This record gives sequence, C-alpha cells and structure tokens, in this order.
Amino acid sequence: MINIAILGFGVVGSGTAEVLTENKKIIEERLGCSYAIRHILDLRDFPDSPFGSLITHDFQEILNDPEVTVVAEMMGGSHPAYDFTKACLEAGKHVVTSNKEVVSTFGVELCRIAAEHGVRYLFEASVGGGIPVIRPMINDLSSNRIRKISGILNGTTNYILTSMKEQGAAFGDALKEAQRLGYAEANPSADVDGIDAARKIVILAALASGKLIDPKTIPTEGITKITLTDTHIAQLFEYTVKLIGHTYVNDDGSLLAFVAPRMVPVTNPLSRIDDVFNGILVSANMVGDVMFYGPGAGKLPTASAVVADIIDIIANRNTEIKPIVWREATPQDILPFEEYFCPRMFICQGSQKDLPNALASYPAKEADGACGVITPAMSEADCNALAVTLGDMLLATYRILN
Amino acid sequence: MINIAILGFGVVGSGTAEVLTENKKIIEERLGCSYAIRHILDLRDFPDSPFGSLITHDFQEILNDPEVTVVAEMMGGSHPAYDFTKACLEAGKHVVTSNKEVVSTFGVELCRIAAEHGVRYLFEASVGGGIPVIRPMINDLSSNRIRKISGILNGTTNYILTSMKEQGAAFGDALKEAQRLGYAEANPSADVDGIDAARKIVILAALASGKLIDPKTIPTEGITKITLTDTHIAQLFEYTVKLIGHTYVNDDGSLLAFVAPRMVPVTNPLSRIDDVFNGILVSANMVGDVMFYGPGAGKLPTASAVVADIIDIIANRNTEIKPIVWREATPQDILPFEEYFCPRMFICQGSQKDLPNALASYPAKEADGACGVITPAMSEADCNALAVTLGDMLLATYRILN
Repeated sequence: MINIAILGFGVVGSGTAEVLTENKKIIEERLGCSYAIRHILDLRDFPDSPFGSLITHDFQEILNDPEVTVVAEMMGGSHPAYDFTKACLEAGKHVVTSNKEVVSTFGVELCRIAAEHGVRYLFEASVGGGIPVIRPMINDLSSNRIRKISGILNGTTNYILTSMKEQGAAFGDALKEAQRLGYAEANPSADVDGIDAARKIVILAALASGKLIDPKTIPTEGITKITLTDTHIAQLFEYTVKLIGHTYVNDDGSLLAFVAPRMVPVTNPLSRIDDVFNGILVSANMVGDVMFYGPGAGKLPTASAVVADIIDIIANRNTEIKPIVWREATPQDILPFEEYFCPRMFICQGSQKDLPNALASYPAKEADGACGVITPAMSEADCNALAVTLGDMLLATYRILN
Repeated sequence: MINIAILGFGVVGSGTAEVLTENKKIIEERLGCSYAIRHILDLRDFPDSPFGSLITHDFQEILNDPEVTVVAEMMGGSHPAYDFTKACLEAGKHVVTSNKEVVSTFGVELCRIAAEHGVRYLFEASVGGGIPVIRPMINDLSSNRIRKISGILNGTTNYILTSMKEQGAAFGDALKEAQRLGYAEANPSADVDGIDAARKIVILAALASGKLIDPKTIPTEGITKITLTDTHIAQLFEYTVKLIGHTYVNDDGSLLAFVAPRMVPVTNPLSRIDDVFNGILVSANMVGDVMFYGPGAGKLPTASAVVADIIDIIANRNTEIKPIVWREATPQDILPFEEYFCPRMFICQGSQKDLPNALASYPAKEADGACGVITPAMSEADCNALAVTLGDMLLATYRILN
C-alpha cells in the first residue's frame, strides 16, 4: 500500500483526487499494488466533499507521517509551495507537481535535493497540462539532440487569439469573454503578458539543454498590443498570430528562450491549434519535427498528468532512476538575443505606396488603412534599427516562425 | 559496454546504425554507459559502408554471441524476422523492432516469450515511425482508460490524399507521383489497400485493451476507390477525406478496430495532417483528446524511435520492468461491426432534386454532377440496407469521424 498526500485542494488538487479514485481499479492493476490518499492539505474545509475527512490544515502532519511516500503539490505560487516541496524531498518523500512557477524558479535546487535524497521530483503537469510532453522528451527523444522547441503554451491567450481571428473580437472583448468562461483570471497578467508561457518555455529549454534560465530574465512579450488589423494582415499572408514560447539550443549547449506573439504560417501545425488547446513542436536532429497536442489546462487533463507522475514513481519505487540534473544557466550560456535571426513582418500606417524605401521592395498586403510587409530574415538588432527609422509610421513588428 | 546487433541493413537498419553513431556521445552521456554495434545481419555485402566490416550473413553468429545484449530487428516481413526474434528472446536477448507485420501478427507470443525469459520486446517504431506514441500511451496515459484512437497511420496514402485535395490529382496520378518520389512501393497494395494501417491500428488497440486482434480479420478498406468528386464534395461540407485507422474500447474491454477512408471535419486536428506525416488522436477518460504528430516513416525518424527503445532497454537493464501482457482477442471480445454507429455521407449521382425520399431531408451539396448528403448517425447495418435501396444511384458512402 502506497500512501499519497495532496497539497492544495483547488482545481488540479481535487481533480487529482478524482482521477486517483475514479480510475483506481485500472491504475492498481497496472501498478500491481494498491494506494490510498492519506492527507489533503488546504486552508479550507470541505465538509461536503467525499474527500472532506482527509483534509488537514497542518503541513507538519504530512511531513511527519512516515507512511506518506508520494506528495502531490498543487498549491500554485512560490511560497509555501517551494518550502513544502523542499521539506518533503529532504524527508525522503517523492514529490510531483503541476506548479510551473516553482519548477521554473527552483527546479535546479529541487532536482538536486531529490537526487541527494534518493527520491524523485516530477513535473509533467507543469507544461502543457494533460499533454504528455516532458516524459516523451526525456524518454522517447532520447536518441536525439533537441534543436528547438516552439510551443503554444498558454490556453487563455490562445483562446483570446482564436476569438480575435474567428469572431473578429477586439482583444479587450475577447479577454472579457475568456474571463466570463473561467479561462482567464480576474487579474489576467500572468497569461496575457506571457509570464506563464515564459515559465513553461524555460522548463522545456532546461529539458533540452540541461540549463535552467530564470524565467524573469527572458525576453517576454504578451498579446495585449495585438490589434484586429494585425490579425487581418496576417490572414492575407496566410499566417496566424500565435503567442509562441520558443527555445533554440546550439550544439555547444548555449541557448536562447523567449516568448512573443509570432506570425505562424498556415502550413505549420501550430497555426491550427485553436481555443484553449496547447501544442508543442519539438525539432530534433534525427526525428525531425514532432508535435504534442492536447488540453493545456483544465481540472481532469492536468490531473491526468499529475497522476501519470505518481504512477511512474510508484511503478519505479524500487528502481534506481537516473535523476534529472540541471544547472542554472549563466550569462555565458545565453545566446545574445540581438543576434536572433528570422524573417519579419512590419505593419505600417497607410498603404503600400507610402512605404519607405527600406521596405518598398518586399511583398506587401493592405488592410484597415495599414500595410504589412514581409522582409527576409534579419537580426533583432537590425529590426530594432529599422523600427527607429520607421518612427511613428510603424504600428507593429512580428517575428515570423520558420 | 553493451553490444547491439542489427538484423537487416535496409533503410531503417542503416538509419539505426547512423543514429547510434551520430548521436553516440549524447546517448552515452544520458545512459552513463557505452555501447557498440557488434554485428549487422544482411544477405548483401556493403563494402563501401563505414559499417561494412560488421556485416555477417549468418544469424547464428549473432544468436550464439553471448556479448550481444540487444538485437534490433528491421528486416520487414514475417519470416525469418519472427523466427529470428523468437530465437533471440529465447536466448535471453532483448529485441526492439520497427516491424509492424511481426508485432501485429505474433505480438502476443513474442511478448510472452520475452517476459518468460526476463527480457523485453519493444516496438515504438512499428506505429507512427518516429512519433513517440507507444511509450507515451503506456507511461503517460497510464492514469487513463483509453476509449478510442483515430489515426492517420500511413504516410503513403496520406500523401496521395493530400495530392488529390491540394493539386486535384486523380488517384492513379497521385499514386504514380508517390512512387516516383519513393513514398510508395512498386506494388503499393499494402499501403493503398489499408493493410499497413490495419497492422498499426491493431497494435494501438492492443495497447489500449490488452487484446491483439488478427489484423487480417478487421474490416479494411483502402483509398483506391476515392474519386476527385468525393474530395470536392468533402470540401464543400468542410471535411477532408483521410484514411483512418480507428479503434474503440468499451469499459468491459470489448473492442472494435477497422480501417476506412473517412470524412474528417476541418475542426478535427487530424484533418490538417498532410503529406507523409502521421497523427494519432487518442481519447482517454481523464485527459480527453491528445494527439501525437510527426514523420510517420523515413530513415532517420524511424531509426530515432528504434534507438529510443534501445536506450530504454539499456537504461533499465538492471530493473524489473512490468512486461507487456497481451492475449489474442477472441470473437467474443470483438464488438459487432454491423452495430458501429456514426454519421454518414452518401454520395449519389445527379443533383439534390434527384435524391430519393430517404435522403431528401438532409443537408446536401452538389459537385461534378453528384450530390453528397450528410445523415445523422446510423449503424453499419442500416447504412448497408440504405445503400441497397439506393442501388446504382449510389456512388460512395463515407463514415464521418466524430
């Protein structure tokens, strides 16, 4: 009998209890052993929940219970989630989590502590909700060198961008609708400013490179400035505007990660991922491009990934598993962003005939009194310099995903 | 040092040698141990290959070499691939394979023999080429009951269908182009008649249900009868014609598997998988729908999956792994196909006003002197009965993927 404790009985925590209960029979058959939820930590009481009797308000009760082998942390936020995770690992308990904030900020230390104490720290649910992506990257692309990853990593912003494209809703209206449907928080900043996507892309980048970048330091641009004009011009060029978390890893292990809205060609499978779904396109040196697609959030999908980690731990509890070893990325590891090189779209006021000489020779399309121009690949530095010369005429620039 | 033998130095076999060599450094780092290719079995000699000195024509040399721990079978065909696999497993050697014919036909016996001899028989590359799908289904959807799987499982037919849709090429011309490009064999039957897809869907069905169905017994329809008129009418309804391997698993474990061209709504992510790419959409009771996408064939992609299996075996060589246990599906396990229930499209000669009463009330679209009609869900039996009453008027019927 394996005993499990759940930290945080919110959406994902209660979903995890539900998956563990609903599918108990098949999971125990697969594991060849039985399990039970022994404690659920939350500040609140849940007198009407079937799990109400398991609620405790005292973390020490879990930490000091030698019968608890696996702890599932789904509290969200850095503190006390990080502190509780660290304490559990140091006490020789395995920890699984959906908490991207903790993994992206403290992942190096927590993986090291887990390894030192012979336990595991797993976080499949921290990226892509229910989509299997972290374990497949570790296990199934193990024969490959991962070159780059481009992901639609945030369901809220993808819902908003889909509404803007399909319904012609302006950003503010699409956001309100997302809030009404429960897809966006009252304070939507973590989603619409790209912060959530930044946390997820640094986790993926660490899986590809072994180096964890502080997510607060990567170039991060959200979707708040995207206009309907931008989406109209995108469609004329057969692009779709998507918020993309992107990482590129050099052969020498140096890397780059950033989050920005990008023009995605309709031929790229990421362009067709709509609504709250997520998709992660991984390019590796032998397999080429593979994509993982599915529900990037939601109670049961995310819980499905949390429970997959719990099953992995229980199934391999008597096995020596090679630990995840990351180190903090140093400034020397980071490729200079100003050298990032890709084709661009410039959106300028006026019509094609108003374009300055610098842009006049490239393909252009007009919509809503503005003109979009596609340029060949150029660096961030050159793009910024060109933007300065365009001055007030320039409405927006986009990187094209290639 | 782990020694590997390769059986069959064709496309995938030589790709496997290439992946093992090209990415040796990173793979050995990940494994924490070194490996070598020790023998390559082929009827031919390869004097100009860097691996030429490893070629042997004598399988016994590999079988009797106690230093060989892992054997990668990439010969294709049932015999001698099955016989060699069985002999290797019985000799206590792990076997990995890309051979869907052997896995789908002899998988029950070979998995059992592997378990009896404490070795593993892995076959990630047998479905979806380089796409991670088998291990993710086993490991990452382990908290789920898998309900159904719909897959574009054959790159050749998907290339042909994409050409028909995008270039307006007739089936015969698209097939010739696929043969010219090396995507289709001189004898294309295994692909265009759905035989290859049937082998793959029974493997996926066995992973979901534990029961392996003889692929020769499942309803299997290829793409040879699809006309450009069908694709035109599909487009008018916002469907795409795709060859779909489908399996459905009941809660009691009874199941259904079949291969047929289907009308896939453009809102379904499978509708957008073009050219030689494959996609496998898995519906499970907790996570909902997840899709795995990537190169379904090709030298290095398929080899990437073969080598992932080799790495899995080497990494876990001192671990007791729960074996894959399948049994042969009995007639009682199989859901009666005549009860399979889904919406349909009937394509009839003439225009909407010529439709018989039985179809007159449903949405209809005309193209090329034919008329397509969408009906609500009906069983195979009812569909067949209706087809009889339509007689010569009926050009085609399609199941709609829902």
